[in-house]
Amino acid sequence: MTGTTVGFVGLGAMGRGMAGSLLRAGHAVRVWNRSSGPVAAMADEGAEAADSLAEVFAADTVVSMLANDEAVERLLLDPALLAGAKATLHVNMATVSLGLAERAEALHAEYGIGYVAAPVLGRPPVAAEGRLNILAAGPADLLVRAEPLFTAMGERTWHFGESPRQANTAKISANFLLACAIESMAEACSLADANGVRPSDLIEMLTGTLFPGPVYSGYGAMVAERRYEPAGFRLPLGLKDVGLALEAGAARHVPLPFGSVLRDAFLDALAHGDEDKDWAAVAAVARRRAGLPE
Amino acid sequence: MTGTTVGFVGLGAMGRGMAGSLLRAGHAVRVWNRSSGPVAAMADEGAEAADSLAEVFAADTVVSMLANDEAVERLLLDPALLAGAKATLHVNMATVSLGLAERAEALHAEYGIGYVAAPVLGRPPVAAEGRLNILAAGPADLLVRAEPLFTAMGERTWHFGESPRQANTAKISANFLLACAIESMAEACSLADANGVRPSDLIEMLTGTLFPGPVYSGYGAMVAERRYEPAGFRLPLGLKDVGLALEAGAARHVPLPFGSVLRDAFLDALAHGDEDKDWAAVAAVARRRAGLPE
Amino acid sequence: MTGTTVGFVGLGAMGRGMAGSLLRAGHAVRVWNRSSGPVAAMADEGAEAADSLAEVFAADTVVSMLANDEAVERLLLDPALLAGAKATLHVNMATVSLGLAERAEALHAEYGIGYVAAPVLGRPPVAAEGRLNILAAGPADLLVRAEPLFTAMGERTWHFGESPRQANTAKISANFLLACAIESMAEACSLADANGVRPSDLIEMLTGTLFPGPVYSGYGAMVAERRYEPAGFRLPLGLKDVGLALEAGAARHVPLPFGSVLRDAFLDALAHGDEDKDWAAVAAVARRRAGLPE
Amino acid sequence: MTGTTVGFVGLGAMGRGMAGSLLRAGHAVRVWNRSSGPVAAMADEGAEAADSLAEVFAADTVVSMLANDEAVERLLLDPALLAGAKATLHVNMATVSLGLAERAEALHAEYGIGYVAAPVLGRPPVAAEGRLNILAAGPADLLVRAEPLFTAMGERTWHFGESPRQANTAKISANFLLACAIESMAEACSLADANGVRPSDLIEMLTGTLFPGPVYSGYGAMVAERRYEPAGFRLPLGLKDVGLALEAGAARHVPLPFGSVLRDAFLDALAHGDEDKDWAAVAAVARRRAGLPE
Repeated sequence: MTGTTVGFVGLGAMGRGMAGSLLRAGHAVRVWNRSSGPVAAMADEGAEAADSLAEVFAADTVVSMLANDEAVERLLLDPALLAGAKATLHVNMATVSLGLAERAEALHAEYGIGYVAAPVLGRPPVAAEGRLNILAAGPADLLVRAEPLFTAMGERTWHFGESPRQANTAKISANFLLACAIESMAEACSLADANGVRPSDLIEMLTGTLFPGPVYSGYGAMVAERRYEPAGFRLPLGLKDVGLALEAGAARHVPLPFGSVLRDAFLDALAHGDEDKDWAAVAAVARRRAGLPE
Repeated sequence: MTGTTVGFVGLGAMGRGMAGSLLRAGHAVRVWNRSSGPVAAMADEGAEAADSLAEVFAADTVVSMLANDEAVERLLLDPALLAGAKATLHVNMATVSLGLAERAEALHAEYGIGYVAAPVLGRPPVAAEGRLNILAAGPADLLVRAEPLFTAMGERTWHFGESPRQANTAKISANFLLACAIESMAEACSLADANGVRPSDLIEMLTGTLFPGPVYSGYGAMVAERRYEPAGFRLPLGLKDVGLALEAGAARHVPLPFGSVLRDAFLDALAHGDEDKDWAAVAAVARRRAGLPE
Repeated sequence: MTGTTVGFVGLGAMGRGMAGSLLRAGHAVRVWNRSSGPVAAMADEGAEAADSLAEVFAADTVVSMLANDEAVERLLLDPALLAGAKATLHVNMATVSLGLAERAEALHAEYGIGYVAAPVLGRPPVAAEGRLNILAAGPADLLVRAEPLFTAMGERTWHFGESPRQANTAKISANFLLACAIESMAEACSLADANGVRPSDLIEMLTGTLFPGPVYSGYGAMVAERRYEPAGFRLPLGLKDVGLALEAGAARHVPLPFGSVLRDAFLDALAHGDEDKDWAAVAAVARRRAGLPE
Repeated sequence: MTGTTVGFVGLGAMGRGMAGSLLRAGHAVRVWNRSSGPVAAMADEGAEAADSLAEVFAADTVVSMLANDEAVERLLLDPALLAGAKATLHVNMATVSLGLAERAEALHAEYGIGYVAAPVLGRPPVAAEGRLNILAAGPADLLVRAEPLFTAMGERTWHFGESPRQANTAKISANFLLACAIESMAEACSLADANGVRPSDLIEMLTGTLFPGPVYSGYGAMVAERRYEPAGFRLPLGLKDVGLALEAGAARHVPLPFGSVLRDAFLDALAHGDEDKDWAAVAAVARRRAGLPE
């Protein structure tokens, strides 16, 4: 009954929650991961353990959630794997570059495998609860096929068009806006602090008025309290995503001056040893520039 | 019964709503405005028309809502006016620079008049409904005296400290964050559009997920639809407020690189004749830079 | 013989050299300065000491070399002084804002006094040798009258037009380019250092090839050797001049993104206590951003 | 007599002049190029035509001058080529990234071939005259071996250390400074023009005073006269080199805010169709931002 089994590649913090959501929704799931621990754990929850990627791609539909371009390129954009695959649909849910999105689409087309991009918004706990927001793009019929899986993993699917790269563009844009919001608050809190206003008072007012929602209140608190650990999203990953936006802009000749400022601020943070901190630590850069105690 | 009458200076779009709110809450209000039309209109609603600023400053408490530093400096920071005033409290609700805030505080102290800064968040319709957010700072006893007036004009008062300039700092910071949010969306929408994603799809997803609330949805729609008229807040006023943030930063040596980008973008917009458009028109700058149709 | 005497206002480091050059060229010079020491010293060299600005403005031609807008505004843009003046030509050689240039031109016109702007390039030793470069603008007949003075003080006069503000624009632009050259070298030296190239090797090569001349070699050495003292031109003066460029740009809606970067870098330097250092100390900002030892 | 023959790869506009200089200095030169025309032309000047890269690498010393990373990677970083090479020294004179410099060094070491980096300053006419400036780095003994070749091709060799990447760093830094000088003049000329000063007057004064030398006068004239064709150095090449600087900075966490501004300006130029213009065409971006006629 391979046809009704869903293959799943990548059991990191996000992938575990997503595969678990599929299981809980009643899907048969065959999982593979580079390290075996998460595979065993997921098998305890009822998943079928695959010994190879080829076994996963013997399933009719494959969902993958890998860390970045490099992992996708190395593990999945493998002609041998795709040539031998029985899968007719691959749903790539990773945050990848537009260049990779295009190479992936072309390669899957070459081997007659449907390809859909569906990166997500949400942290691991949200993934575990099956309440992700899913940004999807690809041929309409494939999106229809994928929708029961999206329903299991997410609370809502947002559609961006027939070309997979459109979903990756939306995800990159969303992360760009997150980084902008953090830097905005970082600068505003430095301005406030230097002028005698407590940053936490400022953030409390802002999130109680103009800027409701978890982004401003969550990151606002981290910025105001200078609390950058534990990292929810590490600074180098933030720089990587800002880089994806700059690269996507450059390919179409779109200057992103806020993006340029972000890149320089993230580099400054890394130059000061903050690679294990949350990307909210760009706030330390804003404070250092102003000579405020870090 | 001058002691129980509130003097009110400045019946612009905001001031009219605020003075009206005071009247509706049962306060006796004596109003003055540079042009007489709004005074007459307010008299019809039950206000007492003052012929001079001196009459207004004969009231025990004066509230002022003028357009900018220049108007406040010229009309109210007048030694003759303050020397002859019976008022013991002046609540300045305008958005002014920190420099002016300090000069105002010092001058009022010289003449023995209490001084409180209470700039607001909210557009004219919100002012008319008495639902402003009021950002207040000043000596605690004066804030207690002003609170009944704040209650009449606003839905909530946010306190920032004992020094009036703290409230002005908070207001300047809030407007800075607004401008940053607009520019962020402007860049993201250019990035999306150039990569085949409809900006309205992007904004719909963002406001439905990470960025709820009226700022992202309202300005997001304007940016996505390239609808910059009618202006809710004109571009030159936006540049003025970005300038207040940069100036407040410079005085304390706080670099604001996002602020610098904003300033350059607003100048670019003005260089292209957008002075009567909403400040969301910085989005046209982002599109022009990318060679996208404006 | 007032008609052939030149009045001279402002005996700072620059003015002393310039007045001395006039004396050496055979001009009768009547000098005034806020503090009396330099007046006495110049009298020893043969100048006539004036007790008041009015005495200086009794001369047919007045040359002034004050520190900034504030000094010019306060001392010279004085209706009482100008109304009583016998002078028919005032040559203002200070670096001032375009706004001040316009107010000065208008006020002198009101009192029937010719007005020429002639800011200079060159440090005090160059002024002392009479080898300044003089950037002049004003009505052609007045420039002809001033030329013998320029010949005494400078090695060359550059003409920019009939309107005094044009010369101020040229001077502001020149200082802007100086600041850009310093920041460029600051960033390049940080880049080189972080990648294992000795900054002094880089600067030696650059000044021996693409970038000859004293600016790159002089500031390049300071940047490469991290030698910011003694200050030839103090950092706050640099920030002031960058501010003049930004202000001149803003008035005509000219974005200057390099100028914005400069402003933020200078603020960062001031935030770290470098106010008494040479403006080459922006190089310390570039190094700090990169986590390089300062 | 292979040992005394110099192999030469890459007969583009620069390579032709450089190989010609070697010939004129009496060196036996064996040349290879992707297209055969330049090979034939060089054979007419006395060079030996090679049919393959292997023949070139049979010479004791090989000099290469290819266009970019891609060409070097594809043609020369070829294990088969290097494994079969008799050459004991490869002098790579191309402008390449630091990443490529490191890969090249490692790969040559693996095959026991000496590797030196020696990018140059100078345009094709300068190459043809043998008057390049050569920026060299590599093991000292290899630099000694290469010096007679450098003497033939250049007027001076500048040394940056024992590691080849140091020379590439110096070259990247030099091009970064060129781009900064162009953008600085672009902004200053827009500022001047918008304020009534003729850009050519400004540039004439600047190059006659603070900024002597061919860079400011050559690019200054192009900027002032808005003359961006014919292209001496095309805008996309400029963007590529700015990109090399940003990449070299990012790898060591060196923020380059001027570099970020340059990148955005070059993208803006490309978004407006200027890909065949000289990189001085960033001046058109500065003018467009300010609403000045392009």
